[in-house]
Amino acid sequence: MKLATLRDGSSDGVLVVVSTDLRRAVKATGIADTLLAALESWDRSEPRLRDLADSLSHGRLEGELDFARASLAPPLPRTWQWLDASAFHSHGELMQRAFKHAYLDTMHTRPLMYQGGSDDFVGPHEDMPLPAEADGIDFEAELAVIVDRVPMGTSAAKALGHVKLVMLANDASLRSHAVPEMKTGFGWIHAKPATSFSPVAATPDELGTAWQNGRVRLPIRVSWNGKEFGRPDAAAMGFGFHELIAHAAYSRNLSAGTIIGSGTVSNENYRVVGSACIAERRAIEIEDGGHAVTEYMRFGDRVRIEMLAADGGSIFGAIDQRMVPASS
Amino acid sequence: MKLATLRDGSSDGVLVVVSTDLRRAVKATGIADTLLAALESWDRSEPRLRDLADSLSHGRLEGELDFARASLAPPLPRTWQWLDASAFHSHGELMQRAFKHAYLDTMHTRPLMYQGGSDDFVGPHEDMPLPAEADGIDFEAELAVIVDRVPMGTSAAKALGHVKLVMLANDASLRSHAVPEMKTGFGWIHAKPATSFSPVAATPDELGTAWQNGRVRLPIRVSWNGKEFGRPDAAAMGFGFHELIAHAAYSRNLSAGTIIGSGTVSNENYRVVGSACIAERRAIEIEDGGHAVTEYMRFGDRVRIEMLAADGGSIFGAIDQRMVPASS
Repeated sequence: MKLATLRDGSSDGVLVVVSTDLRRAVKATGIADTLLAALESWDRSEPRLRDLADSLSHGRLEGELDFARASLAPPLPRTWQWLDASAFHSHGELMQRAFKHAYLDTMHTRPLMYQGGSDDFVGPHEDMPLPAEADGIDFEAELAVIVDRVPMGTSAAKALGHVKLVMLANDASLRSHAVPEMKTGFGWIHAKPATSFSPVAATPDELGTAWQNGRVRLPIRVSWNGKEFGRPDAAAMGFGFHELIAHAAYSRNLSAGTIIGSGTVSNENYRVVGSACIAERRAIEIEDGGHAVTEYMRFGDRVRIEMLAADGGSIFGAIDQRMVPASS
Repeated sequence: MKLATLRDGSSDGVLVVVSTDLRRAVKATGIADTLLAALESWDRSEPRLRDLADSLSHGRLEGELDFARASLAPPLPRTWQWLDASAFHSHGELMQRAFKHAYLDTMHTRPLMYQGGSDDFVGPHEDMPLPAEADGIDFEAELAVIVDRVPMGTSAAKALGHVKLVMLANDASLRSHAVPEMKTGFGWIHAKPATSFSPVAATPDELGTAWQNGRVRLPIRVSWNGKEFGRPDAAAMGFGFHELIAHAAYSRNLSAGTIIGSGTVSNENYRVVGSACIAERRAIEIEDGGHAVTEYMRFGDRVRIEMLAADGGSIFGAIDQRMVPASS
């Protein structure tokens, strides 16, 4: 089952069920007005949403929409909690070497995770408004999952069952602020503007055998201004999402609708498959030639993030958006 | 005007207007069901809430409640964003010296701020469930403000007008996790369980002349198991709340209902006035005698946080709560 949210002027948008081929959609009227509401009563709403998805797959429905022409919000336009990890070790280790961070010997045993702003996400095709090019604008292509309520102390073994939906994220970053904010130990505020998510969030069964051990075993495809930038495989995630959820829930409950991110997808052979963020390419350049060559994004630049199934179909639809000045 | 929220089994509770003396309350039925809803349309709801507060001050109202017997949620049981600063420099500098953090020369020019979980706050008299005593359970007595929507790029000069309500916070911390998580640069996840807030949130005018330059110029009174622990004056805040809001809004919009915290209240003469968290007292002990003497909290321990007006009346009511095992 694939779900999406249409912009309608409200803060939470309107929930729609989307056909597997991403061509058609129908409002979930009478089941749940919003995805957040659906997640808060998932046991009741999920079977009814699946029935609607089944009807949609069997033929034309009254009130059906052309999904390609829809004005899309992210699946959750806002939610109560957004926790993003850095679970691809090849990325973390490269960044530590290149930018001379203190080495974290716990990286392989304890997930790195920051808390992001969850109140104001950007739609997959919406412009991303940012204060200044000088801040070092970067994209970060990631996987993310949405959970139902996870009680404090939930184990990794039990956490997997709380994964209700999977999607892609563009966890945009302002790199000029990243290291100064890391040095405070308090995490990122200026360095992390609003995050964007893919057109649809899909239940794990839509991934078939690509969903294994809390990981999505497929490449994430990233292009920048129409040119391929990277296609690292998300199978390389150093922790599964179940482990990230258990980490997040150690001393807190996670509300239904909490989003957990993987961090920038990265592979050991990044020189071959490319990268899912500019900072990683710059780190490779520093290792190879002593200094970074690739500049960060300019206003007007566009990033595209997508993941294809074995049959070539787009699983989540594409994030495809421009960076623009906040004042425009 | 003073506002509070009653527990009623729902996630956002029921909004009530409270008399200035904290004895009586009345539901804001017909104006706004919840404080979050009131904040999302503050221009419309505030005058009507003030009218109700005015009526309450002039005599008995139908449906009036005994506020002292009410089952209290925090003013916002959950909200979209919670950003907490560390704006008292005497605290930050002492902690850096005692725990040998790298010195942050930017501390006086750039607020320290972390993003906390905002989805699951604890009521002022509710038990705070935590995983283990061994985590180093600490209280942190703070001031906090609630804003309406703050657009990205709002200046400090304009930010002051966005402060709609003021309250107290117990930003409980698990100290065993604090320094390891700071070393990652990603900020705190395990170290920051759910935060608790005072019985009422008050409009700034309730503070009279004590509200100046984005600061509350009154001591915060902290006791631990019935014994006074500290009474530092919140006037010493190194940045005003308007400066903290502008910092928070550099690269993001802040949704209506965003809470901004001051960080642990602290004064230069902490040896005289005491501290608003245990970690600060331990740091003083390390400076004075080479090692910390005061242990962190045990399950069953109680902390009380309150602020009195010049006439001796409690402004926000008291946070007065126990730390308990999460499994109980």
